[in-house]
Amino acid sequence: MKPAIAAAARLIVTGGTFDKRYDAIKGELTFKETHLPAMLEQARVTLPLTTDIRLLIDSLHMTDVHRQSVLEACREAPETAIVVIHGTDTMVQTAEVVGRAALAKTVVFTGAMVPYSVQGSDAEFNLGFALAMALALPAGSYVAMNARVFPWNDVQKDKQEGTFKALG
Amino acid sequence: MKPAIAAAARLIVTGGTFDKRYDAIKGELTFKETHLPAMLEQARVTLPLTTDIRLLIDSLHMTDVHRQSVLEACREAPETAIVVIHGTDTMVQTAEVVGRAALAKTVVFTGAMVPYSVQGSDAEFNLGFALAMALALPAGSYVAMNARVFPWNDVQKDKQEGTFKALG
Amino acid sequence: MKPAIAAAARLIVTGGTFDKRYDAIKGELTFKETHLPAMLEQARVTLPLTTDIRLLIDSLHMTDVHRQSVLEACREAPETAIVVIHGTDTMVQTAEVVGRAALAKTVVFTGAMVPYSVQGSDAEFNLGFALAMALALPAGSYVAMNARVFPWNDVQKDKQEGTFKALG
Amino acid sequence: MKPAIAAAARLIVTGGTFDKRYDAIKGELTFKETHLPAMLEQARVTLPLTTDIRLLIDSLHMTDVHRQSVLEACREAPETAIVVIHGTDTMVQTAEVVGRAALAKTVVFTGAMVPYSVQGSDAEFNLGFALAMALALPAGSYVAMNARVFPWNDVQKDKQEGTFKALG
Repeated sequence: MKPAIAAAARLIVTGGTFDKRYDAIKGELTFKETHLPAMLEQARVTLPLTTDIRLLIDSLHMTDVHRQSVLEACREAPETAIVVIHGTDTMVQTAEVVGRAALAKTVVFTGAMVPYSVQGSDAEFNLGFALAMALALPAGSYVAMNARVFPWNDVQKDKQEGTFKALG
Repeated sequence: MKPAIAAAARLIVTGGTFDKRYDAIKGELTFKETHLPAMLEQARVTLPLTTDIRLLIDSLHMTDVHRQSVLEACREAPETAIVVIHGTDTMVQTAEVVGRAALAKTVVFTGAMVPYSVQGSDAEFNLGFALAMALALPAGSYVAMNARVFPWNDVQKDKQEGTFKALG
Repeated sequence: MKPAIAAAARLIVTGGTFDKRYDAIKGELTFKETHLPAMLEQARVTLPLTTDIRLLIDSLHMTDVHRQSVLEACREAPETAIVVIHGTDTMVQTAEVVGRAALAKTVVFTGAMVPYSVQGSDAEFNLGFALAMALALPAGSYVAMNARVFPWNDVQKDKQEGTFKALG
Repeated sequence: MKPAIAAAARLIVTGGTFDKRYDAIKGELTFKETHLPAMLEQARVTLPLTTDIRLLIDSLHMTDVHRQSVLEACREAPETAIVVIHGTDTMVQTAEVVGRAALAKTVVFTGAMVPYSVQGSDAEFNLGFALAMALALPAGSYVAMNARVFPWNDVQKDKQEGTFKALG
């Protein structure tokens, strides 16, 4: 049974805008390595945390195989509180794959609309918000963005606004 | 009765390191105005939020009168989910004043070890983390720092380390 | 005749990496408006400066018509000290067009390898360096990058290294 | 004889607001180490540069002994182009000590009104501007701030405005 507040958490990294960084030679945003360790140090985290770097890709390139790999990472994790860093474009689909598996774990998907490495990023806020939800919510699969949290089967991305909202 | 996840929240600002900014003429960190509106815009928040700027002081200057004013702000708030931005030095004392009042609300105190306006600040992460805890936890008074949350009567600041931990 | 140190300067903006900003909805770096006014305020500039926003394009899209427009902007400027903010990819070509016109003015081209809006940008340093060179050097057309200044007819971009150097 | 543009430069660090960083435990701005290496990497400098860390103090604490040490550092430097990073409060006094020595070198004093480690700093711009002036100007002692450069014997700090201007 999940305790009121989990005492440890796992961060599963898949890439997404969150982790893009500017390549000065190519002149574009690409993936090189995750910012998670730097972000956790900045946040002065003392909670026991394990970071599992599964993928570093744009979520538009996510296939079913990738999503199964994320599900496996959640299933194998010894922790019951899990945050998945994910691109926003297909975050809802991967949250659905994890949600249908009905694990006895709290899995919270988050990402960023502006990369951590760009001025005015929402990445640090979203990481803090999603991590707290992973520690506090009952088991399930959720999407946390815009200071809101949604169950996997009642959420959609509004691509015009760049925000997440409930269905219907 | 408090719903599983609150649908709105209140932010009560009291100052603290979180909100200090550099005064180029005086050559020191002072208070001028809160960064909260800029921070919420950066975080792309769509949750209904009300900001109540009560104080803008260093928490070492907090008196009993100030703490009663924070308690009043919590009591008067129509929202049941409340984040109090507070200096870390006496955050535990104010959390105790609110905790003893046993309001039917979730009040989460947070702050920062590095000001929002300084490189490498923990302010955005802490705001996200504390807000999620205020939305998700049962009624009570809490301190949220370092990706951890503590009930008001089991928390202390380790001044050597600059971190918060449980008592004994 | 040009005085030892010019008492005013003109900034001609054409775009380039320097001025790109992240569009959260499109998920890419684009042009919206120049960062120059914000950058000059940050630099606490008291020198009389006029900003002329000619273009906001990637320098790979620069045509001969665009380059003539930059030359016209230099020719028409009442100031004798001019900085042109330009994409690095074709900066040398535009500097050549201005150089061949042999104006009685000091025109210094600069840009950035990392946008101003991205962490770790060279834009502020390059702006300061190029402006000082525009104020201090004799009439001519120059490229200033990497804390070095080159006459227009002895400079090339090393695309592997992302730096500028003299010919042969 | 000094060439038109020096091919190398020396940076002499003395501290000042430029190099202050936030100490999260003490809750104040202090000196720990210079930001110069990080700043030069950010600026993508390829010019041969040597950094000489003489002092890391607030310029209000500068004594005659300290100023003689700065003068010695300038005298001993093999380079003819020198930038001195200095606190703004007594920058003019140290520039005078160096100016009266009438070295056959170009020594440009600069600093910052906002530390490099604080959002909105003028440090990168000032470093670029001062370095270009050190490379381009004839021998002498100068103060470079606010995108302007002044000879040592015609400059004062306006403490109300936080800017530098000519005498009289």
